[in-house]
Amino acid sequence: TIPVYTVEMVEKKSTAVRLGELGTKVGRTVRIEGEIAQIKQTSGPTIFTIVDESGTENAAAFVEAGVRAYPEAELEDIVRIVGEVMMRNNQLQIEVDSLVLLAGEEAERVRDRIESALDRRAEPEDIPFLVESDVLERLKPEMRKVAKIIRKAVFSAQPIILRHHADADGICSAVAIEQAVTSLIRESGGDYDADYFLFKRAPSKAPFYEIEDITRDLDYALKDHARFGQKMPLIVLTDNGSTEEDLPSLKMAEIYELPVVVVDHHHPDEIVDQYLGGHVNPYHVGGDFGITAGMLGTEVARMINPSIEDVIRHFPAIAAVGDRSDAPERGRYLQVASDRFTEDDCKDIALALDYEQFWLRFNDGRELVKDILDIKGNNDRHRKLITLLVEGANMAIEDQMSASMPHVRQQTLTNGAELFLLDVEIHAHKFTFPPPGKTSGEVHDRLCRQHPDSPVVTIGFGPDFAVLRSRGVMMNIPRMVRELREEIPGGGISGGGHLVVGSIKFVEGMRQEVLKGLIEKISIVGAGM
Amino acid sequence: TIPVYTVEMVEKKSTAVRLGELGTKVGRTVRIEGEIAQIKQTSGPTIFTIVDESGTENAAAFVEAGVRAYPEAELEDIVRIVGEVMMRNNQLQIEVDSLVLLAGEEAERVRDRIESALDRRAEPEDIPFLVESDVLERLKPEMRKVAKIIRKAVFSAQPIILRHHADADGICSAVAIEQAVTSLIRESGGDYDADYFLFKRAPSKAPFYEIEDITRDLDYALKDHARFGQKMPLIVLTDNGSTEEDLPSLKMAEIYELPVVVVDHHHPDEIVDQYLGGHVNPYHVGGDFGITAGMLGTEVARMINPSIEDVIRHFPAIAAVGDRSDAPERGRYLQVASDRFTEDDCKDIALALDYEQFWLRFNDGRELVKDILDIKGNNDRHRKLITLLVEGANMAIEDQMSASMPHVRQQTLTNGAELFLLDVEIHAHKFTFPPPGKTSGEVHDRLCRQHPDSPVVTIGFGPDFAVLRSRGVMMNIPRMVRELREEIPGGGISGGGHLVVGSIKFVEGMRQEVLKGLIEKISIVGAGM
Amino acid sequence: TIPVYTVEMVEKKSTAVRLGELGTKVGRTVRIEGEIAQIKQTSGPTIFTIVDESGTENAAAFVEAGVRAYPEAELEDIVRIVGEVMMRNNQLQIEVDSLVLLAGEEAERVRDRIESALDRRAEPEDIPFLVESDVLERLKPEMRKVAKIIRKAVFSAQPIILRHHADADGICSAVAIEQAVTSLIRESGGDYDADYFLFKRAPSKAPFYEIEDITRDLDYALKDHARFGQKMPLIVLTDNGSTEEDLPSLKMAEIYELPVVVVDHHHPDEIVDQYLGGHVNPYHVGGDFGITAGMLGTEVARMINPSIEDVIRHFPAIAAVGDRSDAPERGRYLQVASDRFTEDDCKDIALALDYEQFWLRFNDGRELVKDILDIKGNNDRHRKLITLLVEGANMAIEDQMSASMPHVRQQTLTNGAELFLLDVEIHAHKFTFPPPGKTSGEVHDRLCRQHPDSPVVTIGFGPDFAVLRSRGVMMNIPRMVRELREEIPGGGISGGGHLVVGSIKFVEGMRQEVLKGLIEKISIVGAGM
Repeated sequence: TIPVYTVEMVEKKSTAVRLGELGTKVGRTVRIEGEIAQIKQTSGPTIFTIVDESGTENAAAFVEAGVRAYPEAELEDIVRIVGEVMMRNNQLQIEVDSLVLLAGEEAERVRDRIESALDRRAEPEDIPFLVESDVLERLKPEMRKVAKIIRKAVFSAQPIILRHHADADGICSAVAIEQAVTSLIRESGGDYDADYFLFKRAPSKAPFYEIEDITRDLDYALKDHARFGQKMPLIVLTDNGSTEEDLPSLKMAEIYELPVVVVDHHHPDEIVDQYLGGHVNPYHVGGDFGITAGMLGTEVARMINPSIEDVIRHFPAIAAVGDRSDAPERGRYLQVASDRFTEDDCKDIALALDYEQFWLRFNDGRELVKDILDIKGNNDRHRKLITLLVEGANMAIEDQMSASMPHVRQQTLTNGAELFLLDVEIHAHKFTFPPPGKTSGEVHDRLCRQHPDSPVVTIGFGPDFAVLRSRGVMMNIPRMVRELREEIPGGGISGGGHLVVGSIKFVEGMRQEVLKGLIEKISIVGAGM
Repeated sequence: TIPVYTVEMVEKKSTAVRLGELGTKVGRTVRIEGEIAQIKQTSGPTIFTIVDESGTENAAAFVEAGVRAYPEAELEDIVRIVGEVMMRNNQLQIEVDSLVLLAGEEAERVRDRIESALDRRAEPEDIPFLVESDVLERLKPEMRKVAKIIRKAVFSAQPIILRHHADADGICSAVAIEQAVTSLIRESGGDYDADYFLFKRAPSKAPFYEIEDITRDLDYALKDHARFGQKMPLIVLTDNGSTEEDLPSLKMAEIYELPVVVVDHHHPDEIVDQYLGGHVNPYHVGGDFGITAGMLGTEVARMINPSIEDVIRHFPAIAAVGDRSDAPERGRYLQVASDRFTEDDCKDIALALDYEQFWLRFNDGRELVKDILDIKGNNDRHRKLITLLVEGANMAIEDQMSASMPHVRQQTLTNGAELFLLDVEIHAHKFTFPPPGKTSGEVHDRLCRQHPDSPVVTIGFGPDFAVLRSRGVMMNIPRMVRELREEIPGGGISGGGHLVVGSIKFVEGMRQEVLKGLIEKISIVGAGM
Repeated sequence: TIPVYTVEMVEKKSTAVRLGELGTKVGRTVRIEGEIAQIKQTSGPTIFTIVDESGTENAAAFVEAGVRAYPEAELEDIVRIVGEVMMRNNQLQIEVDSLVLLAGEEAERVRDRIESALDRRAEPEDIPFLVESDVLERLKPEMRKVAKIIRKAVFSAQPIILRHHADADGICSAVAIEQAVTSLIRESGGDYDADYFLFKRAPSKAPFYEIEDITRDLDYALKDHARFGQKMPLIVLTDNGSTEEDLPSLKMAEIYELPVVVVDHHHPDEIVDQYLGGHVNPYHVGGDFGITAGMLGTEVARMINPSIEDVIRHFPAIAAVGDRSDAPERGRYLQVASDRFTEDDCKDIALALDYEQFWLRFNDGRELVKDILDIKGNNDRHRKLITLLVEGANMAIEDQMSASMPHVRQQTLTNGAELFLLDVEIHAHKFTFPPPGKTSGEVHDRLCRQHPDSPVVTIGFGPDFAVLRSRGVMMNIPRMVRELREEIPGGGISGGGHLVVGSIKFVEGMRQEVLKGLIEKISIVGAGM
């Protein structure tokens, strides 16, 4: 009898090499499996950036010069590649011998393996907060959620754009996250300067995510996507992002399917949440703005990458004094920082951040800001820098006060509050530090000290805006703005802010009517120390 | 007898390889002939970019590190190169074994061959227009001339700078040409991202080619020429470029021998033509501004590269409604677009373009604009985007109107026209959408609807300018401006525009006199519906 | 007896190859010694930039992909490297076989050798000035010092940032130094476009080194240092840098240990000198502003690199007429330039520089400016360009004068001086050429010609500033400003300038009081022709 042989194709079941190990395999032929994270055509080969559960590397496939290799392979497909590990132009690279598109069950298996490994890998460690805080404890699940979304973006080579309010609190929050993200990018391989082109921090001009900001972010992201085959970015907003004013930009982000997460301590409008992948906000759990963005950002940063804790642990204290928090957490974070910085040091650093950011305009000043925050390991330089900046800031403030204070007009309202009016357009230096809002704040602080027993309202107005500061007056600025908008047709009125601190905009030609209406409203609310 | 041998140098007459075929010759030694289009010294070899009738490639010649190879070879010389075709750093490249400068008859023969092949290749196909139009038929020779100049620039690796008016009509015109040019660059070889560095589209701030614009364009072009050995660019102006106001910039372009072509529908001043290599303008053939720049640009784009017709065929309809054309071509182009877009769709797209361009400031927003024009193959995203942008634009317009309309002052002129005055500086929001010109236009439209039977003039003025809109009044704004300039010494008056729609500038201190004089002139011209 | 052998390690004492010779050693293994000038980690090898007494080259060291090789080696360490000279990606490079950190005596020996060679090499040649000048002779030691600091920066691959006043004199001075430095960089090896990334020229907005300027310079320098391992730069200030107003920026530079040198002709405040590595200023040796920055810069440039003398020898003449010098050196430098340019030519070039710089805003316009200064070897283009720019400038000035002159108000002061007042905010075109300062100057010149026998003071004022020009009036503007600052509380007064030409700033709401006070002070000083 003749034996019957059945021939079966047996693929050698050697385990695929993880991308994280390629650095040790230069010169060898390996098999890898992963997801395509970028496809870039050159005039030579096609470059595929591959992500697996361990890291990110490039694979070069050549058919003919300038011709797209493996056109069937698309962004986010799962592929198996066999090729030699090479150094090309000082970069690690796989020279593709074969690239197979995995499909069906097999693709699912690899995708699941990568996805679940990524998911596990993205899960933040469960570490205690730097301080005791009920509010923070209640926020923990949402903070972990945001940290995980950010970690996953890093591990899957998705670019991150971090937008933040351009003041000391916003900077502390954003730089904490920046340190966590960039160190995580460096640890997880990929191109050697991926921490520069996959991460961008940008201070916003307005205290919200303006249409102009998202327009610029989208313009660049879409160009990078078209020209370099990059993924569309994750947007992270901090000390910013939780109010109705952010809505137009969030809707724009939704159309382009950009995920957005927010870490903020402004009073949130519920309507934004439908556009957010995560939203850490103390108001959601019974807290308030006293838990500053800098506190929240630092704790989220520790979840993203615990190894940077020592670098950033003093940030919340700076943020707390910068934003004048009077939450109990303020003192606890000051305690955490106290081995290196006193409360006065923190105030100086916060002032130095505000002052330097003014001169940086809307550049991030990455390295300068690190020195101000003393995280470059050069404490001597830090101290000299703070001394110089604080001196500069205080001289500018004194100069502004000597120009402005003599022009403040006083009037006692029927409710007993002392009202102070200053025209910051004609009785203050313009286009320099301190800007109108800070000028009004400084004037207000001095007037409060001069009138320790009276309720005080200070209005600093320009041609088409007014800034309000108050103490001991039961104002509800957002409601006053809404009412004035109704009562003064043709006033072009908008604005808002917190209950007792805020601003209002109007058309220049209606300034007198608007200020009159505003003062009338302030006159009738409760006031008393 | 001894035979006499004459030794003759016989160069092997094998045909030179065309550059367009090099992609299939990697690893082989070839002979090529072409014109030097760029010479870039590196710290290693000298890189010559060579153009022939079929394409563009780089050749690397090495003598000593950082030393210029073949110093006798200069930009635009004709050379014969023998070398091996290699892949260097993911780029196709010829490694030069020998480079011979052709001279005299031989150079002429090659240059003629390349030049005449380029000339043939640059000749646009003779295709019918998308719609019937006598004006377009009469413009055809000039359109073909401009299309050919642009095609030749592409084939000879000359950079192109495309400047355009930053409104819907200008954007449609410019993006049509952009699509034609970039696809043609990609088809014709050269560096893999040549469609980025050899083509730049830039919206202009002013409705003409300002000195500031050409200064920036020249600054960059000269630096690229000096640093990277690039050719000086071809300037293409669209919806822009045909009036006296462009003269200073055109003179500057002439000094640097930059060729300039114009595709415009503004009333042309004859004096510009001496500076232009081509000028498509309906006024030259008895047409007028109803043949919009978007119509002209789209038809020129089809001549440049007919294969993109399907991508851009709806642009003229958008341009027509955007610029309020009432030429018969408007309806015909709307018909062309009607399989995909209704007239209302086109209006929405035009408004969305204006609104988005406002936020883009003077960035081109290449990819965003493509989505607005629905040429990225993602109609779902396009529809959502238009809905969001139109909603945003209309909300902003409503907001502006509610601030402005209550402040409009009315006065009936002696000629029966209703005059409306609005101070857009103090009775409108500034630095936001809609800007002063559009604000005045919206106000005017509403007033026209409110006074359907009267001639209407609307003047929106700021500190040192006024914008005029009118209906049923026989104004000649350019003449009024000239007369006022004479009559009001120290007024610093300039301006112009169309006959019945335009603007005037003056020094702030003379505003009252200028407005008074302007109104007097308007009062005495014929008016009636 | 058995002989005893002592084994001694003998390192082969072959001489290390100088970096300047590497271009001829491609393919050979060499030994080099030098200082580490840059350390750049790639995803492949670590790139060390090495400097010795002869030049600058890169060395690539590989241990594992993306891992820092020889982590013990730091910036400014002295090392000995053995490796093969290669061409990598069109760049000369040493592939490191071994890198040894030299220490102790040996390092000192090499460092001393390099340092003393660098020191010798950096020493400027002793060449005579272009003209006879006692003041220049007395300045020679300081000029040599500054030239040496700049030469040493070039030879040790330290980036240079050159900031200058944005007028004709400042541009002449800065471009002279630019030509000297960039040609020296090109001669001394290193990366092929090092003359671009190691040198940056930037016109300053203000007539001093503003906080905003140094903030931007530092931001970029620190980022380049962090990302590309570049050295921190040398700052060179010209036509700028010698007054109290520069102090905040100089203090900032000191904190970052940025060396700063100044070449200026403004009246210096002694306090700045503690922050400067060198300061060339005619006031230090009994001269004055008549020795313009353009004269000083050109002479320093010749010391930096004598080979460019022919290129720049006409610059001082242009600077002299641009800044209206009446020093005896003016005529002598005009004589030097006279083989190519008449005095009128020089005036035209100076005006063209001012006009073009206005449109360049604060870009350097490197190549455009070279054409204006006629140093590109295209005299025909130069002449056409000057004609066009001068015509444009004069038309703009005429236009401004016809708007402004009718609004000038005249008043005869008690001291007999004629005072002329012009509101340049409401009676001049804004945001165009000529700007307010130049407008006031042109008005003053015309009024002086109209009143040839009277002392004349012209004040051009805006909302919060005034510009002063005078003839025949014994003003001391800095003192008047100091007094007004005392006398008008809440005036927000600052300013200064020269004795009889200057400006004053104030808050808008106090304009009337400040102008009144100013005019009173002018009325009582001596006046007469």
